[in-house]
Amino acid sequence: MKYSVTFLPDNITVEVERGTSLLHAASFAEINLKSSCGGAGTCGRCKVKVDTGYLLACKTLINDHMTAEIPDDTRLDEHKVLLSEKEGLLTAPRGVTLTDYPHVPLSRKIRVSIEAPSINENSSDFSRLQAEIAKQVGLKSLTISLPVLKGLAESLRKDTWNVTITLTYNGSNLEITSCEPGHSLTSCYGIAVDIGTTTVAASLVDLEKGISIDKVGTYNRQARLGDDVISRIIHGSDEKGLQELQKLIINTINELIDKLLSKWNMQSGDISVMVTSGNTTMSHLFLGLNPKYIRLEPYVPTANIFPVVKAKELGLAINPNGLIFSFPAVASYVGGDIVSGVLATMISKREELTLFIDIGTNGEIVLGNQEWLISCACSAGPAFEGGGITFGTRAMKGAIEKIDINPSTFETRVETIEGAKAIGICGSGLIDCISKMYSVGIIDRTGSFQDVSSSRVKRNENDKLFVLVWAKDSGLDKDIYITENDIKNLIRSKGAVFAGIESLLKTVQLDFNVVDKILIAGGFGNYLNVYDAIKIGLLPDLPMEKFKFVGNTSLRGSEIALLSQDAWKQAEIIGKMMTYIELSVGNLFMDEFTKALFLPHTDLTLFPSVK
Amino acid sequence: MKYSVTFLPDNITVEVERGTSLLHAASFAEINLKSSCGGAGTCGRCKVKVDTGYLLACKTLINDHMTAEIPDDTRLDEHKVLLSEKEGLLTAPRGVTLTDYPHVPLSRKIRVSIEAPSINENSSDFSRLQAEIAKQVGLKSLTISLPVLKGLAESLRKDTWNVTITLTYNGSNLEITSCEPGHSLTSCYGIAVDIGTTTVAASLVDLEKGISIDKVGTYNRQARLGDDVISRIIHGSDEKGLQELQKLIINTINELIDKLLSKWNMQSGDISVMVTSGNTTMSHLFLGLNPKYIRLEPYVPTANIFPVVKAKELGLAINPNGLIFSFPAVASYVGGDIVSGVLATMISKREELTLFIDIGTNGEIVLGNQEWLISCACSAGPAFEGGGITFGTRAMKGAIEKIDINPSTFETRVETIEGAKAIGICGSGLIDCISKMYSVGIIDRTGSFQDVSSSRVKRNENDKLFVLVWAKDSGLDKDIYITENDIKNLIRSKGAVFAGIESLLKTVQLDFNVVDKILIAGGFGNYLNVYDAIKIGLLPDLPMEKFKFVGNTSLRGSEIALLSQDAWKQAEIIGKMMTYIELSVGNLFMDEFTKALFLPHTDLTLFPSVK
Repeated sequence: MKYSVTFLPDNITVEVERGTSLLHAASFAEINLKSSCGGAGTCGRCKVKVDTGYLLACKTLINDHMTAEIPDDTRLDEHKVLLSEKEGLLTAPRGVTLTDYPHVPLSRKIRVSIEAPSINENSSDFSRLQAEIAKQVGLKSLTISLPVLKGLAESLRKDTWNVTITLTYNGSNLEITSCEPGHSLTSCYGIAVDIGTTTVAASLVDLEKGISIDKVGTYNRQARLGDDVISRIIHGSDEKGLQELQKLIINTINELIDKLLSKWNMQSGDISVMVTSGNTTMSHLFLGLNPKYIRLEPYVPTANIFPVVKAKELGLAINPNGLIFSFPAVASYVGGDIVSGVLATMISKREELTLFIDIGTNGEIVLGNQEWLISCACSAGPAFEGGGITFGTRAMKGAIEKIDINPSTFETRVETIEGAKAIGICGSGLIDCISKMYSVGIIDRTGSFQDVSSSRVKRNENDKLFVLVWAKDSGLDKDIYITENDIKNLIRSKGAVFAGIESLLKTVQLDFNVVDKILIAGGFGNYLNVYDAIKIGLLPDLPMEKFKFVGNTSLRGSEIALLSQDAWKQAEIIGKMMTYIELSVGNLFMDEFTKALFLPHTDLTLFPSVK
Repeated sequence: MKYSVTFLPDNITVEVERGTSLLHAASFAEINLKSSCGGAGTCGRCKVKVDTGYLLACKTLINDHMTAEIPDDTRLDEHKVLLSEKEGLLTAPRGVTLTDYPHVPLSRKIRVSIEAPSINENSSDFSRLQAEIAKQVGLKSLTISLPVLKGLAESLRKDTWNVTITLTYNGSNLEITSCEPGHSLTSCYGIAVDIGTTTVAASLVDLEKGISIDKVGTYNRQARLGDDVISRIIHGSDEKGLQELQKLIINTINELIDKLLSKWNMQSGDISVMVTSGNTTMSHLFLGLNPKYIRLEPYVPTANIFPVVKAKELGLAINPNGLIFSFPAVASYVGGDIVSGVLATMISKREELTLFIDIGTNGEIVLGNQEWLISCACSAGPAFEGGGITFGTRAMKGAIEKIDINPSTFETRVETIEGAKAIGICGSGLIDCISKMYSVGIIDRTGSFQDVSSSRVKRNENDKLFVLVWAKDSGLDKDIYITENDIKNLIRSKGAVFAGIESLLKTVQLDFNVVDKILIAGGFGNYLNVYDAIKIGLLPDLPMEKFKFVGNTSLRGSEIALLSQDAWKQAEIIGKMMTYIELSVGNLFMDEFTKALFLPHTDLTLFPSVK
């Protein structure tokens, strides 16, 4: 039995089987609803309006024809998630800085003119072509994929033995991935992709010129099946769910490719190579590898190094014979995005001892230099990305990123991204907020609210709270506030990151002072106020000049790998040389974590400048 | 508009579009008709019976419902073409003689037990597996195909970390092509295939034991689209025809695999590697490469070395991740079957100067030793396979293989294969026949009939002829005879082969006497009477002990390559080191050919023993 379901205001009608959930019906209609819990019925984000009121789409099974209206804030709005200029991604310089890596891209085009065969020289088309290629690139072990070989004879003859050959490194040899008739004047292109759990960013790279032509980003479409890595793993633990998730990430990437290609008037065949970096779960889902055991103790991924595969094996919309590289991972929770970040920041090529911190849902931390690399992952939770915080939001227009509190009146003044009316608080705003609330005495060292006299300090039915923006000034028509529980969440997050840093240092029996550089990677890096971050005990108390924001190093590492075979080989070396410290073993981490659940820390001697 | 066509006596009815040829309709009904000319309407073999008489199926376009009866001798009968014991194929010893090549097969199984992961050793499944494999086979560059990696986690856990791994050489690295739970006790198997234009033979090889378990053969199903290489090339010159031919050869091979697997109670997944050898056109059609330019001057194939491909890329019914090797070719008319033959006979590994002759439709000739190899192809025509000869037939039951003629009475006594009533004359019978007719004076040195008085020497409307078997004694209820035109055809064939040999020797400025060994390969090798062959001038006049019949060396070379990676590498070397002499260049061949159009030759000093 089938029923019609109409979604408003889109006015899209789909036919579905009796018993289908409304959430699934929406996805058939190509409408993406928020669903942080992956359809478990717990997050409440997929609410839709029907005649009788609001329903959770995930828990509503269709047993009649119906009409449902999608409220704005239930919809996963693509426009909102385009990586803004503010996020630092689009402001990255077009030229990719290769630093020490030689510019020998994974793929290159060469223009070849071969002799026509004659009765005296009638060796095969392929062997005559090989001889000409060897003249240009030297005698190398050269392979050709069958589909390219199939078209070879005609391509060679179409423009009287002039062809443009694309040679792509396949991990061990050079492979001919395309043979076009004539001497093409166009460059050779690759695409770098950062596969994030929440957002996916892609960069179109001109491999000859060594520049990124354009970058685009979007939501990871998998988000409709759960917000975080754990809910994705659960969904992907059976074959059907795995296929669904793989299809969604492939579609997400294809959409980005399509956007880049149509904007730059290119064909999918023009792209001969892709490098992707993502956390270990994302890499598994991208390749269709079951992520089940990543979540179960002892947290074992299927693989940390991934085979180079052909685009058509995955259904990616580039040259079907093009090759797809996936950055190697280190462990279940230190993935290819971190290896890519280490590559991009040259840590493994320098003498200086560097601390690399990527704060997202997981805080991943790397310490080392050209001699050794050590890493760990601490469950920082999604607080700094706005998750689990009442008015938390990602860094977007209207997000509070800075706050001042008058120490006598407790009146506030906020700065928002693009100066828009406030709609929430992003990571940097939250850090600033705690720092300032602590400074003026609204909260104590443990994050508990103090008895201060201000109309802004209130109670709702569950919790104490501090109003940052009154309803009349906000973009939401309601008060924007932070609760005591929000503060405790944030303290747990910052404590986990700091304890991770301490654990790594103690493992190698070093202390802060020997660290030469601290690199802060990830989305919110560009807005983080280091003073505030030190003041709340998120970052170690070291001289300002040692800190550096490095932005989306995962994407940059992929761009660099596209442009340098040596860089790709270095990525493989990084993956192998990096030691992973499992923080759940022993008491080290828990001890450090407990000590870090204060502002800034129980041990104030660690934070001399805060006093 | 569609019409029904019913084929008798099979009583199979198919619906076809108006205008479909009856030959095509038969193929839809899975009935294979003889069609030597590939539907050109010239060979007359596809005749079928309808109410009004006989029609050529290829030239009959359907414009009404109809019924057609397939005469026995129009049908491509599979049973007749199974390679008989007599042909020497099935009598090959089970053990494959590897001679100098070490027994390191292209694919092997290893039984591995890996440590369960723990929180202290939680590296990935693949890296723990790699470490265990390295213990058994040494630290080698190891790859894994994505589909195998997908199943890895579950396979490892199914039998508590005991697995059986198949490692297959992929041309540059070892690749994990399967991972089965538990420690499998079965061996590792491969299939060797000789892809002949007419027949296809397959050998099931136990890669651990180094023996061939069983061999089967059948007609190449492509035969319905033309008997010889040239008609196949013409048919395969457009994309549709090419796909059709590729599908037919894949089906032929799958049928043989199926026969072997069901007989030996094995699964397709048990076969992890296949090596094929065929002439250059067959290799092209097998891989779906357009053979068009092989036929057009200057006779250029797309490739002489072929990529290693996965079984699923071609639709072969072995492990879909198994690997398919195709023997390298040398030129358009010296193919992988000849390279395989050179490999099997160790020519390129020996000091002795060897002449290798494979007489089929083309005579392919190789001369050389471990220092150098030189080859050519001469269009011998199909006479020695029975083609173009009035009562010519392949070596099968009832074929005349020996004949005696009384020098006074011209009465004959014939010997047939399996002693059955004569149904035709096979290659060895034809050679014997000419030799004896020349001896007793029925024909002169040019093959022209002489004026002898015998009821057996007659004329029909077109030609003079000599009756070998009277109708009453034959299996055909009619006289079996050989015509003057048949004799001339045979003389042209033997002349071409001999001229090819002479051309090779003259190119390197050597003469017969320095040749240490002469190897005769190919189907009719086992029955050829060397005395007769020398007497008619097909083979050079050298001492008997220098000649050796080597049978189907193409299949044997594939078996050897399956069993030895070194042998496969040697095949690649043979392909590269062998020089090809194009006989159509210059006058050398034509001069030699003209001289060889006599029995045995114009220059009798070349045949001292014949006098």
